[in-house]
Amino acid sequence: MPENSTPRINMERFWSTIERSASIGQGRPGGLSRLTLSDADKEMRDVFAEWCQKAGLEMKIDAAGNMLARRKGREDSLPPVVMGSHLDTQANGGRFDGILGVLGGVEVCRALDEAGHVTKRPLVVANWTNEEGARFSPPMMGAGTYVGRYSLEWMHDRRDDAGVRLGDELKRIGYMGNAAMAERFDAYFELHIEQGPILDREGMQVGIVTGGYTSTGMLIEFKGETAHTGPCPMELRRNALVAGARLLTAADDIGWAFAASGGKGTAARLLAWPNKPGILSDWAQVVTDVRHADPRISAVMAEALRRAVGEAAAKANCEFSILDTWTWGGEIFDADLVGMIRAATQRRGYRHMDIYSQAGHDAYFVAEHAPTAMIFTPCKGGITHNNNELCTPDDLAPGLSILLDVVCERADR
Amino acid sequence: MPENSTPRINMERFWSTIERSASIGQGRPGGLSRLTLSDADKEMRDVFAEWCQKAGLEMKIDAAGNMLARRKGREDSLPPVVMGSHLDTQANGGRFDGILGVLGGVEVCRALDEAGHVTKRPLVVANWTNEEGARFSPPMMGAGTYVGRYSLEWMHDRRDDAGVRLGDELKRIGYMGNAAMAERFDAYFELHIEQGPILDREGMQVGIVTGGYTSTGMLIEFKGETAHTGPCPMELRRNALVAGARLLTAADDIGWAFAASGGKGTAARLLAWPNKPGILSDWAQVVTDVRHADPRISAVMAEALRRAVGEAAAKANCEFSILDTWTWGGEIFDADLVGMIRAATQRRGYRHMDIYSQAGHDAYFVAEHAPTAMIFTPCKGGITHNNNELCTPDDLAPGLSILLDVVCERADR
Repeated sequence: MPENSTPRINMERFWSTIERSASIGQGRPGGLSRLTLSDADKEMRDVFAEWCQKAGLEMKIDAAGNMLARRKGREDSLPPVVMGSHLDTQANGGRFDGILGVLGGVEVCRALDEAGHVTKRPLVVANWTNEEGARFSPPMMGAGTYVGRYSLEWMHDRRDDAGVRLGDELKRIGYMGNAAMAERFDAYFELHIEQGPILDREGMQVGIVTGGYTSTGMLIEFKGETAHTGPCPMELRRNALVAGARLLTAADDIGWAFAASGGKGTAARLLAWPNKPGILSDWAQVVTDVRHADPRISAVMAEALRRAVGEAAAKANCEFSILDTWTWGGEIFDADLVGMIRAATQRRGYRHMDIYSQAGHDAYFVAEHAPTAMIFTPCKGGITHNNNELCTPDDLAPGLSILLDVVCERADR
Repeated sequence: MPENSTPRINMERFWSTIERSASIGQGRPGGLSRLTLSDADKEMRDVFAEWCQKAGLEMKIDAAGNMLARRKGREDSLPPVVMGSHLDTQANGGRFDGILGVLGGVEVCRALDEAGHVTKRPLVVANWTNEEGARFSPPMMGAGTYVGRYSLEWMHDRRDDAGVRLGDELKRIGYMGNAAMAERFDAYFELHIEQGPILDREGMQVGIVTGGYTSTGMLIEFKGETAHTGPCPMELRRNALVAGARLLTAADDIGWAFAASGGKGTAARLLAWPNKPGILSDWAQVVTDVRHADPRISAVMAEALRRAVGEAAAKANCEFSILDTWTWGGEIFDADLVGMIRAATQRRGYRHMDIYSQAGHDAYFVAEHAPTAMIFTPCKGGITHNNNELCTPDDLAPGLSILLDVVCERADR
């Protein structure tokens, strides 16, 4: 392929991939409900694989279901420059979210093809399995397993609410591969919508992500005893639903206590059994998290949350187990890559600002494995994990161009 | 049938019916999970109908699925004396609960048959549909509909968690009848286990129920907006799960505030959607109730609960609707019948005490329709709505004999 022009993003071509994706696993009007390893996820994976094949990429699928599509480099034995994110969504998800980062990687490859540009290093476009954690907890599981944070066996044994094993679902949809994991990356770039209101409010075109809110999430189980909701005296009650409700109330209180400095505390999930009128519940399960930009403050919030678990259990006279704790965030991104993104943005004259990511991202785990950075695009009002999530082509074009620029620069170095 | 002896309860015969019932819809070890209108409920209804038929009773089934089995009287056109309760259980229910009152009625008829005693008034043994409210909310629905508190159309339109209509389930199991409802009763006696620890603790054999705790229950819906659990600022969140958790926490607080005088506040049920990690929920549904022996204090608690609904919604920036409110209890039982029970207990020399019922019972609604009273038996430690619910034949024999005595006395008057 002789080089014949400067590579450039074709927004019309890119937008058509967003629209095709938005037709697979539709949820509420305009939104997606493409839960990981569902039939819709399989269909989207198939379409992504077909696009990659047509673009001449070589697809590798590992036993975590991660899809890594490789574009040859001029010095093909060098570690690749990787772009990616995830194609799964929440039950009431939007059409952009991580999809932008995966389909953006496809568009970068297509732009390079069109320009006849073969980078020195190979490129990879990655679709990480189960970033959302909406069906199988915790989130960012495929990336976490790829880099060795989680074991494959553990990942395969996660179960959804219907008791279905993740490993069985991977096999069922045909995405249990055997490609090597933890392969060396030269660099990892993740393009993502901000999922917050800041860039949109400030009129910025690109967010240069310098790090992530330090987050601590927990999966907690409470055990009590069923009894009648009437005669059983308050002091004999062991209502696990009370323990769960008190913990979620405490998590919300912690969030409010640190809200002025941008802290958050989240009541994400509460299950109980039997959870019926007339009977006290003997089991409850809670997912909750806290996060703050300042790791020291985040640690204080996490400690308050841990204390609240014990207090909620004690108040309801229940036993508790913290079944799982996950943490991420901090100053995790690579200074060289962040500088490269900042320079590219300045060269193109986009309005930009440094920003912290407040959500979890696959990039957080990949950052444990390779130099990593993220690029944010604005989204209207910061609305996300909602069918009204909205980005226009104008919102996305600058970020896509920066992705193209930095991938080329890094891969040709 | 010539009278040939004094009617007496045959505990062996009665116990065999309890054991047969305990084999239908088994739950955790020793317990039952016989949710209303399930296949197991149908099987138990069929067995009850067969026993009634063998005892020469005429079965009538109404459009609420209530089963009323009639034993002829010497003056058969007089309003009947009715005994009954319910055969459905909670998901983790016990083997005695309301079953005692229905099978106790069958045993009374068998004892009269054996003695060759035909009462002046006819007798009826009633199995009321959906006393528990565990599958279809609210509880005590069949009795409530029989006496006109609820309309048949409304009852038929109740749905379980899977969206199944109660009316469709009644038809499916073959218990949608067309017998007349709200027929005149001369008197209604309900024998039930106490479902509390008082009789057992005090060493009493019979509880003479003089009234019921005044209870107020509510079904509440909260509406918010889905959003990301990370970047969405606390002040923009509209997490319906937070509203639900805060309301249940408040209900528990209200219970504790009045615990010294025997008050209770119950967190019974919380559903939310999507109720997943990573996303705020835009919908939650809560069932909660408060109760107290003193109707004035109960009213104060109910008002505090109603206020807590609005406060929980406001704190979570959600909308709320109180979809349903139910109240029962107070001084609802008939003084003549209560006096008759007390006199019979004294005649037989049983250790007895006056007691308030703290649970809801079919008798509460029947009391709006006919003179009504309840007889309590002890149960070990007050454990109920639990597979460890336990009564021995010695716990139940006194109550059964009193039921026989007062039914004969009233029906021969």
